[in-house]
Amino acid sequence: MVNEKYLERLSKEIDQLGIDAILIGPSKDLAYVTGFLSQEDERFQGLFILRDGRYFYISPKLNAEEMEHILGKNTKIYAWGDEEGFESIVKYALAENDLSKKKIAVNSGIRGTDLLDMTKIFSGEFMNGVQIIEDSRIIKTKEEIAHLKKAGQMADEVMEVLTSFIKPGMKEKDIKKKIIELFLEKGSEIAFEPIVASGPNSSKPHYNQDDRRIQEKDVIILDLGCRYKGCCSDISRTFFIGEATEEEKQIYQIVLEANQAGKEAVKEGVTAAYIDRQARNIIHKAGYGDYFFNRVGHGIGFSVHEAPYIREGNSQIIKKGMAFSIEPGIYLPGKFGIRVEDIIVVGEDGPEVMNCFEKNIIVL
Amino acid sequence: MVNEKYLERLSKEIDQLGIDAILIGPSKDLAYVTGFLSQEDERFQGLFILRDGRYFYISPKLNAEEMEHILGKNTKIYAWGDEEGFESIVKYALAENDLSKKKIAVNSGIRGTDLLDMTKIFSGEFMNGVQIIEDSRIIKTKEEIAHLKKAGQMADEVMEVLTSFIKPGMKEKDIKKKIIELFLEKGSEIAFEPIVASGPNSSKPHYNQDDRRIQEKDVIILDLGCRYKGCCSDISRTFFIGEATEEEKQIYQIVLEANQAGKEAVKEGVTAAYIDRQARNIIHKAGYGDYFFNRVGHGIGFSVHEAPYIREGNSQIIKKGMAFSIEPGIYLPGKFGIRVEDIIVVGEDGPEVMNCFEKNIIVL
Repeated sequence: MVNEKYLERLSKEIDQLGIDAILIGPSKDLAYVTGFLSQEDERFQGLFILRDGRYFYISPKLNAEEMEHILGKNTKIYAWGDEEGFESIVKYALAENDLSKKKIAVNSGIRGTDLLDMTKIFSGEFMNGVQIIEDSRIIKTKEEIAHLKKAGQMADEVMEVLTSFIKPGMKEKDIKKKIIELFLEKGSEIAFEPIVASGPNSSKPHYNQDDRRIQEKDVIILDLGCRYKGCCSDISRTFFIGEATEEEKQIYQIVLEANQAGKEAVKEGVTAAYIDRQARNIIHKAGYGDYFFNRVGHGIGFSVHEAPYIREGNSQIIKKGMAFSIEPGIYLPGKFGIRVEDIIVVGEDGPEVMNCFEKNIIVL
Repeated sequence: MVNEKYLERLSKEIDQLGIDAILIGPSKDLAYVTGFLSQEDERFQGLFILRDGRYFYISPKLNAEEMEHILGKNTKIYAWGDEEGFESIVKYALAENDLSKKKIAVNSGIRGTDLLDMTKIFSGEFMNGVQIIEDSRIIKTKEEIAHLKKAGQMADEVMEVLTSFIKPGMKEKDIKKKIIELFLEKGSEIAFEPIVASGPNSSKPHYNQDDRRIQEKDVIILDLGCRYKGCCSDISRTFFIGEATEEEKQIYQIVLEANQAGKEAVKEGVTAAYIDRQARNIIHKAGYGDYFFNRVGHGIGFSVHEAPYIREGNSQIIKKGMAFSIEPGIYLPGKFGIRVEDIIVVGEDGPEVMNCFEKNIIVL
């Protein structure tokens, strides 16, 4: 069913911005508005929300019955057949809703190729609507915060099981499979493909090849999270097999201190960039500034990555109810990497951490 | 590693079309060219292939080490940091490669929002490059056909197991879970989220809610497939629990006859539309034309859906080495639906079916 309350708010927001409609294609955004999580499909579909609160859906004919069931009988659905293509029905729907020459924001679920095809039958203006959508969900409700916390607990529990599961000789992909299974057993599902990066692979923050076998003295970064009632968790910890070298211990402490400094910087009224800087400075001062080359964090909620982005240059003001990661790391190419990540919610009484799992160094 | 041979062919093709470059974002297309299957990420990345055969990659900094490993040391990588955004590095790379005012095709892996952001720093022309990419892979090699066949066999085997697994009382999602497990046991993976649509849900061709319990006298559509060395299978069968009514049996026969007519229409030199028409006419003549509202088939290969699309209006000429589905169906809203789908390859001696699983009516 359509989330009428949210939809009304979104339509008011675009109205205030002088935008005539927002088009939401298959994505977590669409799932948030309608409960409908689309499969990958080359056929165009999307929800148009108008500034006056009306909305309609463009659907391939073969999904139309299901979409009517999902969106409710009151939602106008324009269905198009494979033999005709989607452009003519979009043209018709835009005309019928007086949008043919208007300003339409689009979310990240709309493919560039579909946008290019639509410009042929649309004489208005398309604009990037990502920020509008993200802003509309940036302050979490109490219920959403409770779900984020529950998702965080589940991730903590999985991390705990992994401390006794991981052994030299197993492959990274064995650990990844175990993570997926553990979340399924909890009645949850992964929020993103877990990262298991061992040995020299740990210097690649988004490593996902998974073919290496765990060895004695390895560093292993684990980055995992699940969904609870749609809300995501996301935690990273770095484990050591057998023992950690002096260099590894020293770098771990720097990263941990940066994580702590990031958390302590969180309060209402500061900018996202300020939080980034407080964490980053610790790493910079320790001489590893060149080896921390990504933002300190990202917002989290119904999407794993959403606003606010905790990065240099982002003047977004931090407010109560925002939720985001603090995930400093040091990545030494060809050697190893270390990351410690938690999710923070700006609560009534300051920053509240969604993960309780041990942050001090763990040698398995 | 970059598939240099394919890349050379693709660059020659765009050169002949008078296009200066093609941009391939995260997608199966990118995996086909580079072996790299990207995780979902809001950060922009993509491969630019130039008409003279050169190519370069735009990568977020945090993936740059991994991308260098995947693409090889000889690939120029332009890396951008979270603090700066991707537009300036794209602008720089376009200028350095003399593309700032040129014609660039894009694949379906490029988001509309990224395209909108790039138009601010690019004074050339973007165009839809989906057909170019699809045409470049439309004729399958012998090796690819062997892989399609192997993937088809694996799907047949899973279908066979399901005939004894499915029982009244289990949920649609239990069957879906079993399908996923069966493919994993074979060392494969699903090529798409399987469809298990029972009872009245079977009238929705892309149904994926999965909450209903199987009942006596149900109709169940199963639509599933896997990957073997990247190549996909895709088969649909309709089973009956306990017994089939006269109406169901009659409609099954019509659909089966349409499937057969589609297959028999496949030969070199006919159009895609001709094949669609031969299958569709059977259903139309039987009086159910309004209840078959999608195309007869889609091409298949490294993507589950790709050219040639077997639909009315498509004048594409069928050639040896093409592979596509024939999947007529009749969908009676609120009642039930029936579909019988196979993958056909245009072989040396006529159409070759990739699925051997029973096509006659099966009552469980």
